Amino acid sequence: MRFISFEQGGRASWGRVEGDYVIDLGALPDAPKGLRQAIAQDALRLTGDAPRHPLRDVRLLPVIPDPAKILCVGHNYESHRKETGRAAVSYPSIFTRFADTLVGANDPIIRPAVSGDLDYEAELAIVIGKGGRNIPEDQAMAHVAGFACFNDASVRDWQWHTNQFIPGKNFPGTAPFGPELVTPGEIADLNAVTVRSLLNGEIMQEAPVAHMIFPIPVIIAYASQFTKLSPGDVIATGTPGGVGAKRTPPVWMKPGDQIEIRIDGVGSLISTVQAEA
Amino acid sequence: MRFISFEQGGRASWGRVEGDYVIDLGALPDAPKGLRQAIAQDALRLTGDAPRHPLRDVRLLPVIPDPAKILCVGHNYESHRKETGRAAVSYPSIFTRFADTLVGANDPIIRPAVSGDLDYEAELAIVIGKGGRNIPEDQAMAHVAGFACFNDASVRDWQWHTNQFIPGKNFPGTAPFGPELVTPGEIADLNAVTVRSLLNGEIMQEAPVAHMIFPIPVIIAYASQFTKLSPGDVIATGTPGGVGAKRTPPVWMKPGDQIEIRIDGVGSLISTVQAEA
Repeated sequence: MRFISFEQGGRASWGRVEGDYVIDLGALPDAPKGLRQAIAQDALRLTGDAPRHPLRDVRLLPVIPDPAKILCVGHNYESHRKETGRAAVSYPSIFTRFADTLVGANDPIIRPAVSGDLDYEAELAIVIGKGGRNIPEDQAMAHVAGFACFNDASVRDWQWHTNQFIPGKNFPGTAPFGPELVTPGEIADLNAVTVRSLLNGEIMQEAPVAHMIFPIPVIIAYASQFTKLSPGDVIATGTPGGVGAKRTPPVWMKPGDQIEIRIDGVGSLISTVQAEA
Repeated sequence: MRFISFEQGGRASWGRVEGDYVIDLGALPDAPKGLRQAIAQDALRLTGDAPRHPLRDVRLLPVIPDPAKILCVGHNYESHRKETGRAAVSYPSIFTRFADTLVGANDPIIRPAVSGDLDYEAELAIVIGKGGRNIPEDQAMAHVAGFACFNDASVRDWQWHTNQFIPGKNFPGTAPFGPELVTPGEIADLNAVTVRSLLNGEIMQEAPVAHMIFPIPVIIAYASQFTKLSPGDVIATGTPGGVGAKRTPPVWMKPGDQIEIRIDGVGSLISTVQAEA
């Protein structure tokens, strides 16, 4: 199944995608008011006489517009670790984003006025279904509600002001997230799924999920040791090699550029870069 | 003026401290339901026929129980930067905490089961009053609602798993915050204020705010360039030298230890360390 968060006529809702339509499950009486709440209430399979809207008539919101926690994993593909010159580590490298960095699949990425060093990062995001602490690796996948495309777009000079990445990862409007939440049953072989970015149509990053240094169950188990995971929490699982910053010369995203995150079976997330007003 | 967030008989509220009493402003009709909301609505000076409770009868909550953002500044006193062997940097080093790491002044610090390397960090926290982006340095202090004591207690081995500090700074129950929000008018000379920690009564850290590498207005201006600050957001402004990890041999906090953060004119925040259940 595939789900979206959307806005139509100023009303925020969520629903299940069927072909070119969305079944507006949020419009049903007593329905959870958002996709995060629907996950928390185990209500994704809600049925009823819900209105249908053509997808072209709705504005997509970030898949989960209001996650309580967004964790991101740094240097989690060997090709990216090597290009950054980072030492191998024994644990996932974790940083965070605030929810106000997220944008929907129809929205632009905002290049901040203070920097020209805006870079793309194609990532597979997981959305937590059942929360918990100290989740064992062998049970971790049962805590995943689904997957989505994520662009962990980074303001590199601000990311590297110090050794802490937070500033360069938290400019508003830098994290496109969507278009859809794809439930695990839709993905036959997660390890074979390829994560790609395309800048103005040219492939910049490309690697299968199997190339992750820390596989998804390890990340979930590790993160849940230091923080409680809750339904709707988001974990962006790292980006393959090929980022713009490590090219010669560096490739930065400019206003008007089109950046696509394309993940087999998960979706295509296409954003246009826009200069901050 | 001095304010607290508290719980009494299972009801969460907020109020102004007068001597050994709290004026329960949250109990007034149409009052903002929490201190964060009161700050956002500029309602700290609310008056009315509010009930008074003896302070000994209430349970203190974190000063702001539910901040949208918690930013922390690393290595912001020269004495701490030197003891950690960190290179001098041109920008504040920023990391984040989730709100579920906060505990009130009456609550224990929780030492997680997975680590024995629990360290104290005495910090002056600022609470944002008026929010904004791109706040100029010379206007920054007008965006401060008040100050509070903060213990940025750190699980050092997890902090150093990689170069990103997030895991070691986000174990639940590791950030005592309180007891009171002290408005700027109560502090005659902020630079002269001394930040101290005392472990079982012995002074471990001690430095005046004047020793900050990046003064408070610089931190606010910098942070508000990459993220929007909102009423009730918290910035922990860094810790002086003398942390346990950099002593020979290292000093770790053990269950039963009493750790006090004492800041002139701001308060005394005394927590007992407890092993995770």
